[in-house]
Amino acid sequence: MMDTILNLGINDEITDGLCKLTGNPKFSYDSFRRFIQMFSDVVNEIPSSLYEAEIENIKQRKNLQSDSELDESDLKLLIEKFKKIYTEKTNDIFPQNPKIQLIKAVGAVFKSWDNPRANIYRKINKIPYDWGTAVNIQMMVFGNFGDNSGTGVAFSRNPSTGENKLFGEYLINAQGEDVVAGIRTPSPIEKLKDEMPHIYDEFNTIAHKLENHYGDVQDMEFTIEDNKLYMLQTRNAKRTSTAALKIAYDMVKEGKISKKEALLRITPNQISALLHKQFEKESLSKSVHIGKGLAASPGAACGKVVFSADRAKSLTEKGEKVILVRLETSPEDIEGMNVSEGILTARGGMTSHAAVVARGMGACCVSGCEEIHINEKEKSFELGGKILKEGDIISIDGSTGYIYDKPIPTVPAEITEEFAEFMSWTDSMCNLQVFVNADSPKDIRNALKLGAKGVGLCRTEHMFFEKGRINAVREMIVAQNTQDRKIALNKLLPFQMEDFKNMFLELKGLPMTVRLLDPPLHEFLPKKESEIKELSESLNISIKNLAAIIERLKEFNPMMGHRGCRLFISYPEIAQMQTSALIGAAIEVLKKHPEYKIIPEIMIPLVGDVKELIFVKKIIKETADTLINESNIKMDYKIGTMIELPRAALTADKIAKEADFFSFGTNDLTQMTFGFSRDDASKFLNYYYENKIFEFDPFQQLDVDGVGKLMETACTLGKKINPDLKLGVCGEHGGNPDSISFLSTLGINYISCSPFRVASAKLAVLQAELKTTS
Amino acid sequence: MMDTILNLGINDEITDGLCKLTGNPKFSYDSFRRFIQMFSDVVNEIPSSLYEAEIENIKQRKNLQSDSELDESDLKLLIEKFKKIYTEKTNDIFPQNPKIQLIKAVGAVFKSWDNPRANIYRKINKIPYDWGTAVNIQMMVFGNFGDNSGTGVAFSRNPSTGENKLFGEYLINAQGEDVVAGIRTPSPIEKLKDEMPHIYDEFNTIAHKLENHYGDVQDMEFTIEDNKLYMLQTRNAKRTSTAALKIAYDMVKEGKISKKEALLRITPNQISALLHKQFEKESLSKSVHIGKGLAASPGAACGKVVFSADRAKSLTEKGEKVILVRLETSPEDIEGMNVSEGILTARGGMTSHAAVVARGMGACCVSGCEEIHINEKEKSFELGGKILKEGDIISIDGSTGYIYDKPIPTVPAEITEEFAEFMSWTDSMCNLQVFVNADSPKDIRNALKLGAKGVGLCRTEHMFFEKGRINAVREMIVAQNTQDRKIALNKLLPFQMEDFKNMFLELKGLPMTVRLLDPPLHEFLPKKESEIKELSESLNISIKNLAAIIERLKEFNPMMGHRGCRLFISYPEIAQMQTSALIGAAIEVLKKHPEYKIIPEIMIPLVGDVKELIFVKKIIKETADTLINESNIKMDYKIGTMIELPRAALTADKIAKEADFFSFGTNDLTQMTFGFSRDDASKFLNYYYENKIFEFDPFQQLDVDGVGKLMETACTLGKKINPDLKLGVCGEHGGNPDSISFLSTLGINYISCSPFRVASAKLAVLQAELKTTS
Repeated sequence: MMDTILNLGINDEITDGLCKLTGNPKFSYDSFRRFIQMFSDVVNEIPSSLYEAEIENIKQRKNLQSDSELDESDLKLLIEKFKKIYTEKTNDIFPQNPKIQLIKAVGAVFKSWDNPRANIYRKINKIPYDWGTAVNIQMMVFGNFGDNSGTGVAFSRNPSTGENKLFGEYLINAQGEDVVAGIRTPSPIEKLKDEMPHIYDEFNTIAHKLENHYGDVQDMEFTIEDNKLYMLQTRNAKRTSTAALKIAYDMVKEGKISKKEALLRITPNQISALLHKQFEKESLSKSVHIGKGLAASPGAACGKVVFSADRAKSLTEKGEKVILVRLETSPEDIEGMNVSEGILTARGGMTSHAAVVARGMGACCVSGCEEIHINEKEKSFELGGKILKEGDIISIDGSTGYIYDKPIPTVPAEITEEFAEFMSWTDSMCNLQVFVNADSPKDIRNALKLGAKGVGLCRTEHMFFEKGRINAVREMIVAQNTQDRKIALNKLLPFQMEDFKNMFLELKGLPMTVRLLDPPLHEFLPKKESEIKELSESLNISIKNLAAIIERLKEFNPMMGHRGCRLFISYPEIAQMQTSALIGAAIEVLKKHPEYKIIPEIMIPLVGDVKELIFVKKIIKETADTLINESNIKMDYKIGTMIELPRAALTADKIAKEADFFSFGTNDLTQMTFGFSRDDASKFLNYYYENKIFEFDPFQQLDVDGVGKLMETACTLGKKINPDLKLGVCGEHGGNPDSISFLSTLGINYISCSPFRVASAKLAVLQAELKTTS
Repeated sequence: MMDTILNLGINDEITDGLCKLTGNPKFSYDSFRRFIQMFSDVVNEIPSSLYEAEIENIKQRKNLQSDSELDESDLKLLIEKFKKIYTEKTNDIFPQNPKIQLIKAVGAVFKSWDNPRANIYRKINKIPYDWGTAVNIQMMVFGNFGDNSGTGVAFSRNPSTGENKLFGEYLINAQGEDVVAGIRTPSPIEKLKDEMPHIYDEFNTIAHKLENHYGDVQDMEFTIEDNKLYMLQTRNAKRTSTAALKIAYDMVKEGKISKKEALLRITPNQISALLHKQFEKESLSKSVHIGKGLAASPGAACGKVVFSADRAKSLTEKGEKVILVRLETSPEDIEGMNVSEGILTARGGMTSHAAVVARGMGACCVSGCEEIHINEKEKSFELGGKILKEGDIISIDGSTGYIYDKPIPTVPAEITEEFAEFMSWTDSMCNLQVFVNADSPKDIRNALKLGAKGVGLCRTEHMFFEKGRINAVREMIVAQNTQDRKIALNKLLPFQMEDFKNMFLELKGLPMTVRLLDPPLHEFLPKKESEIKELSESLNISIKNLAAIIERLKEFNPMMGHRGCRLFISYPEIAQMQTSALIGAAIEVLKKHPEYKIIPEIMIPLVGDVKELIFVKKIIKETADTLINESNIKMDYKIGTMIELPRAALTADKIAKEADFFSFGTNDLTQMTFGFSRDDASKFLNYYYENKIFEFDPFQQLDVDGVGKLMETACTLGKKINPDLKLGVCGEHGGNPDSISFLSTLGINYISCSPFRVASAKLAVLQAELKTTS
C-alpha cells in the first residue's frame, strides 16, 4: 500500500558506466527511464500516464506490440522526453546526484504512510496510524537485464485453495512492478520449469526450506539477473480463508504444527469468510456463463454492474449491491472494492492488485478475464456477445471464475467435514461460551451446527413483523385503552407461543434467553398511505383518526424514547402476554420431553433504574408462577436484564440485587456512551476517519476506554452484590473478533452473536484465551 | 392532603347520652350526622354529595338558607336518611361500636397516604413516598356546640404580605371542615374581637407566645366550645414568597433571628416566586377591572378561561396558558392548578383550599369572588355584566384581587430594596459562584442585578435565529462546498462579533464562557412550504434541490446526531468564524477599555473523545493567535469543553490534559445516562410517577446515583491530571435548588443558570454550604 522506487542511484553518467560494465545498453537505458518515471510519480506526484503516453507514441509510430520491443535509441529518446516532462512539471532539472535522489526518495516513502490507500488499508486491517513506518534501502538486482532475466512472485502452497504445491507467476525481462501492477499478464511458475529448469529447481528447494523454517506458507519475491536467482523477500503468505483452513489442517496432519498452533494460524475473519455465500445449486445448474476469468478469490456474488469505486460507494450507501468491473484495479479503488459484493477485472493475474486485495478482504473476485471489452466512457462492457450496462445485474463466481449475465440467488456456504473437525478442536479448550442471537427455529438449527451452545438473545419483536401477525400488532399499538390492547394481544399470544415451542424443541434443553419487546411501537406502524388506508379499514378506524394516532406516536429521538421496559410500565399487559407465551410454550414442551432441562430466561430491555426492573419482574413472576402452578410441572425460570444504558452500568450493584443475569447490549450502550445515533453517525464519522480522530467504528469494535469502562464497572458492582450473577454480551461486539479479546478479560460467562458469526467468535474466544494463558 | 374524621365514637346511644349531658340535642344530632357523612366518605368512599342532597332537600322544603337553621327533628331525620344511604351503598348497617369505627377510620387514614392528591402533593413538594404516615387520634372539642362555639384558623402574621398582624378567619357554630372546605365564607379574625373579646385576647396572647417560642410565624387551628378556647394545632406557617421575605427580613430587624437564620428560612423557590410576573404598568393603567375577589396569592396571570383541571392540563400540554376558574377548588384539582397561570374561585376565603395551595405553589390566585356566576354546564361565567366563555382570555391579579376581561401583558417583577438587601447578605458567605446562562446584553444586565458573577454559558446559536441572520445561517447550512459555506459564514461574522462586543461591554471584565454552535443544523432550516419557497428564491436554488438538501439533513435521532463539535470536524470554518467573532470582539473592547480584564473562554460542546477536542482546539488556537498577534494587544483566552456525554466523563483524565475548564452540561448528560430523550420522555414518565418508579423528573432534579456518579468520576479524574482545571455546571440543574446541595459537594467552582433563577440559585448555594459547614 506504500510506495517504492526501483533503480535509484542511476543518472546519465552511471547509465554510461552501466552500458560499459554490462555491455547491455538497452537494459541500461531501460533502467534509467524506469527510474525517472517512478521517481517522478512517487517523489513529485507527476502522473505516470504522461510518461506512458510517450512510450505509447513510439510504439504506435513503430507499430510495436510490447515495451520490451523498444530498442536502445527508443529508450534514449524516452529518457530525454521524460527529463523534459520532469522539468516542465517541477521547474527543475532531474536530480543527477544519487545522494539527493536517495534523500528525496526516502522522504517520499516515509510520506506514503499517509497516502489515502494506506489509510484505508490500515482502517480495514485495523493498523493504528501512529505506528509509523521504516524505509528499507536495498541493493538492486535487475530482472530487466535481458531474456536471461526476469522477476516473479510465488507461494510455497496455493494461497487460494491451500493445495500443497508451488504457486506463482513470473515475467521474463521485467521488473517487479510489472508483475504486481498487472500491466502484462505473467506466466505461471510451472512454465519456468521448462524455460529455466535449474532456476526452477533452485527456487523450489529454497521455497520448501523457507516454509519449514518459518513453519508457515511463504509468499516470496524473486528476481533472476543474468541467469542467477536472487530471493528478494519472503513473508508468511496472505491466503484465502479456504487456503488458511486447508493449510492449517494439512500442517497438523503433516505433523508440522500442533492443533493449538493451527487454531492460532487462521483468523476469525477467515473463518467467517469460509461461510461466505455460494450460488444456490439449482439456480446455478440452470445458468449458462457468458465468460470466464481467473478464480482469484472465492465466494459467489450478485449485484449491479458499476465501473468506478466512487459509483460503488454511492450505490452501496443507498443499500444497493454492486459488482465492481474494472480494466484493472489500483490501490485508489480499495474503498470501492471493500463495499462491493464482488470484483471483476479484465487484466492481471492471481497476484494482481485486485486478486490480492480481494482475498485479504474475503471478497469474491474474478480477475484477468481477457475476453471482456470494457467501454468506460459508455459505461458498458461486452462479454460473450452480450452488452451489459451500468446497473445491469450480473453474478460472478470467485471459486470457478465464471461470469453470468443474470442474477443467481446466493446461499450460505456449506460446512465441510474438514471445517467441522477443525472447529471441534476448539470445544475442549474454551471457557467463555458462544451463544447465538436467533429469532427462529431455522436460525437455531444453523447456529447449533456451527457450534453455538444456546440462544443468548431471542428478539421477540422480529416475530411480530411476520405476515398474519403484523395486523394484530398494529391493532395492539393503536388501541386506545387496556381492554382493546388486551384483545389484540390475545390474538398474538398463540403465534408467539408456537414460535417459542418450536425453538425449545430445536434447542432440546440448551439455554435460551428471550428479550421482551424492545423497539419503539411506531416502528411497527404503516408508513405508506395505502397501508394506512388498509389498516384503517381492517381496524374500522377513520383514516384521519388513525393518522392522528400514528402522529402522536412519533418521537423526536425514538432511540431514547418510549421503548424497552418503558413499554411495560405503560402497558404491563404486553409483558404479561409475552411471559404467558414463553412459559406456556416451555410447559408444553416439558410435558412432552421431560428429559429437556428447560429453564426459560426472560430478559428485560433498557433498564436504567432498579425500580423499573422490580416493576416488570413482578408482572412476569405473577404471570409465570400462575401458569407453572396450574401446570403441575416443576420448572424454574430466570429473570434478568440488559445492561445497555450508562445508568444501568453505573447502578449495577442495585440492579444486581434483583437480577439473575446481566446481558450487555453493547450496541445501545455504545450509542448512549458516545451520544452517537447508529443510524445517523455514518454522516459524520467519515470526517472522523479522515482526520484520524477515530481509527475504527465503535459500533463494530468495542470502545474499551469508554464503553469498556462502563462494562467493567457493571461487572464488578454486579458480582460484588450477587456472586452468582450470570454475565453475557449480546450486542454486535459479541461477534467481533477485535472486541472479544477485551470481553474475555471481563469474567463474563458467554457472548452471543449472529449465526453467521458463531464460528469466528468461537475461534476468537479461543485465541483470546490462548493468548492470555500463554 | 390526607383524610381526617371528626366526631368519631358517636352512635345512637352516645347521641342520646350527649343530649342529656349537654342539654343540647341539636348539637348532638348535628355531630352524629356529620360523623356519618364523613365516615362514609373517608372509609367507604360514598360520595358526600348524596348526603348533601338530603340536606338540600330539607332546606328547600322548609325554605332555609343555611345548615345551621336545621332543627332537631331535621337532624334526626337526616341521621336516619344517612344511615339508609350507608346501608344501600355498603350492604351493611352503619357501625355503632366505637372500637370498630376507630379501627376502620385509622385504616382509612393510613390508606389516604396513597390517594392521588397526596401523591401529587408529595411530587410537587418532593416528599418521598416511602416515608409513610402516622395517624393521630385526638380528643374532640366541638365548635358546633352552638352560637357560643366556633372554629377557626389564624396566623401570627399575615402569610400573604408578611405584615406583622394577626390574620385569620373563623366560623361560629361550625366544625373545622366548614372553614377549610370553603363551603361557608368565614369572618375575619378581627370580628372575633367584637363577638368574643376575651377569646380574641386570649388567642392573641397565645399566638405571640407560640411565635416567640418557635421563632417563626405560626399557623394555628382553634376551636371555641361553649365559650372556652382550645388550641388544636400549631405549625410553622406556609407563606407567600413576599411574606417569607418580609417576615425573615423583619425578624432580623426585630432582633429575633440572625441573618444566617433568616437566609435559611426562605426557600430558593420562594425567592424565584418573588420574581414572579406583574402586569405591565402602562397596560394595567388603561385596563378596567370587571370584578374583584380576595388577593389570595400574589402575582399576575393572563390566559384562557378553563373550568376544569383536566381541561387545564390538556390545553397546557398543547402549550396554551390558562386560568382555572372554579366555584371552589378541591384537592382533586391540584394537578390542574399546578399547570395553570392563575386560579380564580367564587367561594372560599384566604385560607380556603385554592388560596393555601396556590400560595404553596407560588401561583397567582384570586379567591372568593362572590359576584361571579359560574355556569359549568355551558362553560361560561358572568361577572360585572360580561359573559366570558371557555377559551376567552382574562387576566387576574393575585396581589390586588382584580379580574380583567382582556389580556394584559405581564412583565418580570421589580426588585425591591428589601430583596436586594436580603440577597446581599449571601455575597460574603458563599464559596461556589453563581453565573448566568445569557445570550444577549439584556440578559446579562438583568442577571448582574440579581447577583450573577459572570456568564457561565453563552449559547451562540440563539443569536443565529434573529431576523437578518437566519438567512445567512440557512445559506451556510445549505452550502454544498467549503467555499460557499465560507461566503455565508462571512456574512454572519459581523453580526456575531457585534453581539459579543456588546456583551463584553455589559460585563465590564466579568468572565464569559462562550459555547460554539451546538444544535443539529437542520433545526435552523425552514419547515413550512412557504418558507422553503422563500429560501429557495433568496438562495437561487430550485425548490426541489432545496427540499432534497433539507431531506438529507434529517436525522433519525438528531439529539445523537451531527451536532456539537462534530460540526467543526466536518466544517472547521464554522469554528473559525465563531472564534474570529469572539476574539475580534474582545480585542476591540479591550482597546477601548484596557481596564477590563477580558479573558474569553471558548467552550467546545459534545466532546466524547480527547481527539475531538485536540482537533477543534487547534483550529481555535490558530485563528485566535493570528488575530491577537495582529492586534498588538496582550490577551489570554481559555479553551475548555462541555462534559455532557458519558464517555467524556469516563475519559475525563485524558480530556483534562487538553482543557482549561470543564463545564457539565447536565441536560445532555442526563439524556444519555438514562437514554431518555428530553423531548419524548414526558410521554412515558407519567407512568413512572404513577407507579412510583420515579418520584422526581431527572431533567429538573439531578439524579445523584447515575448522572451524579459520572460527574464525580469526571471531577476526580480531571483534577488528578490537571489540578488547575476550572469546573462548572451549566445545565438546567445548575439552577435547581434540590440539585445544588449535591453539586456543592463536587468541588466545582461555579454553577450557571437562567437569569430568572440566579437569585434562587445563590440562596440554594448558600443554604447548601451552611448545612455542610454546620
